[in-house]
Amino acid sequence: MPASKEYREFLELVRDIGMLEQIGGLLSWDEQTYMPPGSFQQRARYNAVIAGVVHEKLTSQKMGKLIKALKKQKLSSDGEAILRNVERKYKRASSMPADLVKEITRTASLGMEAWVKARSDSDFKKLEPLLDRMIGLKFRETECIGYEDRPYDALLDEYEPGMKAGDIDLLFPRFLGKLKPIAEKILGETEPVDVIPPGTYPLEEQRKFIARLCSDIGFDMNCGRIDISAHPFTSGTGSDVRITVKYDENNPAIAIFPALHETGHALYEQGFLEKYYHTPLADAISLGIHESQSRFWENVVGRSIYFWKYQYPKLQHTFPGIGKMSPDAFHRYINRVKRSYIRIDADEMTYNMHIMLRYDVESAIFDGKLKTHEIPAFWNERFKNYLDIEVPDDASGCLQDIHWSIGAFGYFPTYALGNIYSAQLWDAAKRKIPGLEDRIMAGDVSVLLDWLRKNVHRHGKRYDAKELIRRVTGETINEDHFIRYAKEKYGSIYGISL
Amino acid sequence: MPASKEYREFLELVRDIGMLEQIGGLLSWDEQTYMPPGSFQQRARYNAVIAGVVHEKLTSQKMGKLIKALKKQKLSSDGEAILRNVERKYKRASSMPADLVKEITRTASLGMEAWVKARSDSDFKKLEPLLDRMIGLKFRETECIGYEDRPYDALLDEYEPGMKAGDIDLLFPRFLGKLKPIAEKILGETEPVDVIPPGTYPLEEQRKFIARLCSDIGFDMNCGRIDISAHPFTSGTGSDVRITVKYDENNPAIAIFPALHETGHALYEQGFLEKYYHTPLADAISLGIHESQSRFWENVVGRSIYFWKYQYPKLQHTFPGIGKMSPDAFHRYINRVKRSYIRIDADEMTYNMHIMLRYDVESAIFDGKLKTHEIPAFWNERFKNYLDIEVPDDASGCLQDIHWSIGAFGYFPTYALGNIYSAQLWDAAKRKIPGLEDRIMAGDVSVLLDWLRKNVHRHGKRYDAKELIRRVTGETINEDHFIRYAKEKYGSIYGISL
Repeated sequence: MPASKEYREFLELVRDIGMLEQIGGLLSWDEQTYMPPGSFQQRARYNAVIAGVVHEKLTSQKMGKLIKALKKQKLSSDGEAILRNVERKYKRASSMPADLVKEITRTASLGMEAWVKARSDSDFKKLEPLLDRMIGLKFRETECIGYEDRPYDALLDEYEPGMKAGDIDLLFPRFLGKLKPIAEKILGETEPVDVIPPGTYPLEEQRKFIARLCSDIGFDMNCGRIDISAHPFTSGTGSDVRITVKYDENNPAIAIFPALHETGHALYEQGFLEKYYHTPLADAISLGIHESQSRFWENVVGRSIYFWKYQYPKLQHTFPGIGKMSPDAFHRYINRVKRSYIRIDADEMTYNMHIMLRYDVESAIFDGKLKTHEIPAFWNERFKNYLDIEVPDDASGCLQDIHWSIGAFGYFPTYALGNIYSAQLWDAAKRKIPGLEDRIMAGDVSVLLDWLRKNVHRHGKRYDAKELIRRVTGETINEDHFIRYAKEKYGSIYGISL
Repeated sequence: MPASKEYREFLELVRDIGMLEQIGGLLSWDEQTYMPPGSFQQRARYNAVIAGVVHEKLTSQKMGKLIKALKKQKLSSDGEAILRNVERKYKRASSMPADLVKEITRTASLGMEAWVKARSDSDFKKLEPLLDRMIGLKFRETECIGYEDRPYDALLDEYEPGMKAGDIDLLFPRFLGKLKPIAEKILGETEPVDVIPPGTYPLEEQRKFIARLCSDIGFDMNCGRIDISAHPFTSGTGSDVRITVKYDENNPAIAIFPALHETGHALYEQGFLEKYYHTPLADAISLGIHESQSRFWENVVGRSIYFWKYQYPKLQHTFPGIGKMSPDAFHRYINRVKRSYIRIDADEMTYNMHIMLRYDVESAIFDGKLKTHEIPAFWNERFKNYLDIEVPDDASGCLQDIHWSIGAFGYFPTYALGNIYSAQLWDAAKRKIPGLEDRIMAGDVSVLLDWLRKNVHRHGKRYDAKELIRRVTGETINEDHFIRYAKEKYGSIYGISL
């Protein structure tokens, strides 16, 4: 059916907003890669200006009128999906008073500064007043946005639309119940002793190896880049998707796995259909689904024995110094499981417990059961429960992540959801693609990428996460796939029955 | 006096617009340095969106009302200068109908594409239809903007506010009358035979040398960067100013002089006062004044014997391969004067004639005396008059520059104005700073930069070019300083009386 005048205007406005958001993303990429250090404060103002323009356009009278008009029209299925998603975003943005948005932004800036100091001094007290103020503001935010059951739902919905605290309250304990016995069995085993042979692995060689590796799994370098930043991240969409890595001259694995992780994010962003660029149909469903893609390529594929059967000889060829390490020893090394304090250094087994701990804290706060000053003690006690080691200080404990100080509550659970989704997608892919492991062993991952493109990437936000996972895997979110995956992999690595 | 509510609102809006313009500049920097090639079309749309937002805000009802209100208020001298400049910009932007702006932008995109093709085929006919359409659109623009005497004035005013075709009609022939006899005398001499010794000058060494050189003359690398692009340019302002260069492994001079040129632009942008950032008081007066700064550091200082007395031993130390060339031979080499077809390769003497030729074409077009199809013949005939050589083809002739195909008429004269201003400023600096040449010879250029900061940079658009030059040099624009400079320098290099 021919699009109405209102629909065309609506789509143009939606695309303008989408492009302005991408411009904001580019500013942030630049800030973390090439921006001169002296421009930090100037850049903060540029970020605020772009965010302001996006907010103005998204909550404009024009947008309100167009949405209202289109709801009375018969739209194509594309149009309906776009309208539904934009309306959701419009409502969230419109429900927030401008002074609250500003106050949260301001407190986040101060909070980030305070967090850097508090973490470096390992002193929670130095963050506490600002964190407390932020929590108060986020409570106000939940009231503005609204929720059915619990305030936390309003926050979670920003990152994982459709999911509720009630869902996670069921999922995480069930997941933990199955995961913990396996993890404990593995942790009871002797750690693999082989490590990357000490030596220098030239950065330029690492850079080339990683560029080739990421291209091999499908990263389109004509529409993307790889740069360096303090913390790896992915930025951009469509024909301009950029990832960053951080190299370590003494260990190429330090850059390889984050690079595979970010490439997973990048493949999702490069997998949208061009005709939908800058609309919700070329946008990630949720952070959980985004993370499922990064974890898929980093862990499920990238830490598999199949993958390295093909890639390890290339690694050895590039770095003769690594030659003495056998492929199996390398595979054990990159999959060693151990207790650790820091989330971002954790293996794929214990990582999930780091996340559950954070969810416990967040949900307790927004259920009104945990006061800001009680966070360190609560954290330490829970950490002991999950991982059976004592947290030595706040820096290795509740101060390690930036998220809360900048107001990102409701974000953490999506990391564990990503892990669960990734294994679930892997099992579905194996059912649909005969001889998948053999093909990966032969260096052919394109069949897998094609399958993800067709089943996940190209849909954008046409379905929500629940519906997409149901369509692709035939069931709703199910942690059993991750459990089976873990048993098989670690059983084989450690030579034990799990 | 305390600022009124209207003034504060006005200033915030002005700064938002200034920042959005800088964001547009950053997009353009990125496009020419790091953007993945596959994102060319996507980026064109991003550029259009930012330009659209800037135009919306600049021509908004809110801006109109604030300007009107402030014109009735007593403002500080800062406020008056800001208001005067913003009103000028507001009027220009408001006078242009949206459909004309769009049509010019669209035709510029097509024109750029056609120009690339036409130049590569050396066939003016392939550009002619689009250039003709662009000229028609620019005529319409002059009618919208308005002018007192000649349509061309409306175009020139965009780049060199306050200057008119009538002024240039007096200035350029007077300049030429004095310049041509000197240039011809020099061109009659034998060219210096010494050239950079053939060999490889490693890029990484060149990069370091240039970074140090630019820092030496005052480029603040904490608030700036140097990258690589196909055509050198400067981007950004205030605490984030970026220049680009293009290296040639066989000749370090290929990158050095463009780097000094761009550093001159960068020093201007870094020389604004922070309290005025993103207002007209932290913005360049005109392209002519901007070019005076780049030419100052590239030519007047950067190609002087004083400058290289200090820097040449460093160059020899970095590149032992250059060692056999004497400092005097190097100085002669970097100042060789010769007839050439291509403007951007021209020396500082003949360069001015390349510009006068372009002005002849532009002013004839907008005086209605030259039709689009007559441009090549007119160009070739004039070129013969100015430089006494026959243009072999359109690629080496009227197709060499991109400017006209994207609608930038009125831009070229500012290059020659920059040359004239630069020599005039040099004479003023010499009068004010005792022993200036000796200090430069000793490696101390900071006294000169301080003088420019104080007399030129820090004022932003507080004065127009005419007024600034009068305040700094005690007179209006005067080509005699360039002539004296040229006579002295080239008389000495060629050992002749000029």
